[in-house]
Amino acid sequence: MRILVTGGAGFIGSHLCDRLLARGAEVWCVDNLRLGRRRNIAHLETSPHFCFTKLDVLDEPALTTLFADGRFDAVFHMAANSDIAAGTANVQLDLELNQLTTIAVLKAMKAHNVSRLFFASTSAIFGETDAVLHEDFAPLKPISFYGASKLAAEAYISVFAHTFGIRAVVLRFPNVVGERATHGVIYDLLRKLETDSGRLEVLGDGKQSKPYLYVGDLIDAMMTAWDKADAPFVVYHAAGIENTSVREIAEIVVGAAGRADTRVVFTGGDRGWPGDVPRFRYDISRLQALGWEPQRHSTDAVRHAVARILANGF
Amino acid sequence: MRILVTGGAGFIGSHLCDRLLARGAEVWCVDNLRLGRRRNIAHLETSPHFCFTKLDVLDEPALTTLFADGRFDAVFHMAANSDIAAGTANVQLDLELNQLTTIAVLKAMKAHNVSRLFFASTSAIFGETDAVLHEDFAPLKPISFYGASKLAAEAYISVFAHTFGIRAVVLRFPNVVGERATHGVIYDLLRKLETDSGRLEVLGDGKQSKPYLYVGDLIDAMMTAWDKADAPFVVYHAAGIENTSVREIAEIVVGAAGRADTRVVFTGGDRGWPGDVPRFRYDISRLQALGWEPQRHSTDAVRHAVARILANGF
Repeated sequence: MRILVTGGAGFIGSHLCDRLLARGAEVWCVDNLRLGRRRNIAHLETSPHFCFTKLDVLDEPALTTLFADGRFDAVFHMAANSDIAAGTANVQLDLELNQLTTIAVLKAMKAHNVSRLFFASTSAIFGETDAVLHEDFAPLKPISFYGASKLAAEAYISVFAHTFGIRAVVLRFPNVVGERATHGVIYDLLRKLETDSGRLEVLGDGKQSKPYLYVGDLIDAMMTAWDKADAPFVVYHAAGIENTSVREIAEIVVGAAGRADTRVVFTGGDRGWPGDVPRFRYDISRLQALGWEPQRHSTDAVRHAVARILANGF
Repeated sequence: MRILVTGGAGFIGSHLCDRLLARGAEVWCVDNLRLGRRRNIAHLETSPHFCFTKLDVLDEPALTTLFADGRFDAVFHMAANSDIAAGTANVQLDLELNQLTTIAVLKAMKAHNVSRLFFASTSAIFGETDAVLHEDFAPLKPISFYGASKLAAEAYISVFAHTFGIRAVVLRFPNVVGERATHGVIYDLLRKLETDSGRLEVLGDGKQSKPYLYVGDLIDAMMTAWDKADAPFVVYHAAGIENTSVREIAEIVVGAAGRADTRVVFTGGDRGWPGDVPRFRYDISRLQALGWEPQRHSTDAVRHAVARILANGF
């Protein structure tokens, strides 16, 4: 099995490369190194089954050459702008990096007869709602360009699946935490403590509440969805059990990396930044029915991620 | 009230200009005349309250100048590729003409403090399903780039509504029929009869079944949605009551423009072209609750449209 992983040097992409290699696949990893880091895959580069190319998926000639050379059996399209806050300032950013990269990959797959796709989607497609979000929840009213661009990408995958026979698995990620993260609340708080261990400023009122998933559990979820998908175009949700508040995360971070007298200060407001969905709950029963179960509850995932990030360096 | 109508020389756009002028608005109509026709608005060009500019919405400097000059109170964004079959051959077509024009309009509205938008969306966002489609139906699995691009446009409108205070009304059109149409089943069949009145080839098996809406009823629906929308971002469905099959349409067209011995021949297959949704049913109760009611049932709409197209020339 020869697999192309786009965004493979990124946070989640690099963990995915680890797993695919461990399962015996040949992995061709590409990344434009905008958010991805070469050091995330340094330990893989001696493997005869791993190959890295610095490449921007939006570079059409380069992508065509890659597909011609690669003769891939499948593509895991992980390349994306994953920094939601950055997208709010610039409509083009998520449009290009999330949606147009997906269309570029789909066109290349069609042209080179590659028939299997995994797509990394997001809970952000839904916007704000009190409902417990199952896969077929509506209305979809995204509040960030990140969410809109991922929803648009899913729509294009649906058309390619229907029209050109591409088989696609879409997994809508929740907040994913773990070592190699390049941003996100844990990373931000650790960086702030590094600068000033006496005072920790937390965005919002601390009541934001989301299900966090440890990256190892996410990769398990991806493999279950990939192995057991039972339709040509199928969508799953994965998340840790229960939610964790930002206040709890701040306390865990201070406990692990702060001082006994570190003061936690909240900036106020119900969310961290425009486009942030402050609270959501996820129905993961469809993927559980296939046999997947997160090994860590949401708050355990956060605690484990903090420990791993501190051990790993950031 | 100064209103910008994009795609205002098109089939539906020109009927909209008629109505807005009749309601006392100042109308600035722009169209790139790709599908739109100058003759659709010729009768309006002497009005002191109407102004036409040939303009492509994707021409960013021209759009910026237009918004600076226009000082609009509202925008009706009707510009689109409305030819679903044409889009299947070319991913870029619907992406650019449906989604990127919408993003261009949203950016210009934000930059020039225009706060009210009407958007022409479509039943095609849903793909194929046996369900009766209400506004919050899911999953959304479009099978045409037309549907995907309109769904993507809706998602971006959602973000602009939430983030930048734009008030938006989205109306998802069904199959709309009437004079000034530039394509669609009635137009296609009439053109074929013009070439050979003895034989009428019909795409598919004739069992495709959709709710058709006469354009005058659609404009009524647009005005009701526009006047009575009760939230900053709101979505409605409109359609004629009941469905009409393509076989019935062929019989009506032959009755109006064929000969007693015209042979109707079906090409076979369950749909007219890749991307065509052969059957759908629409729940219109949300808009009915605001007081709108189609004056013509679906089959009456078809009959009336055929008569109007024949009287109007095509």
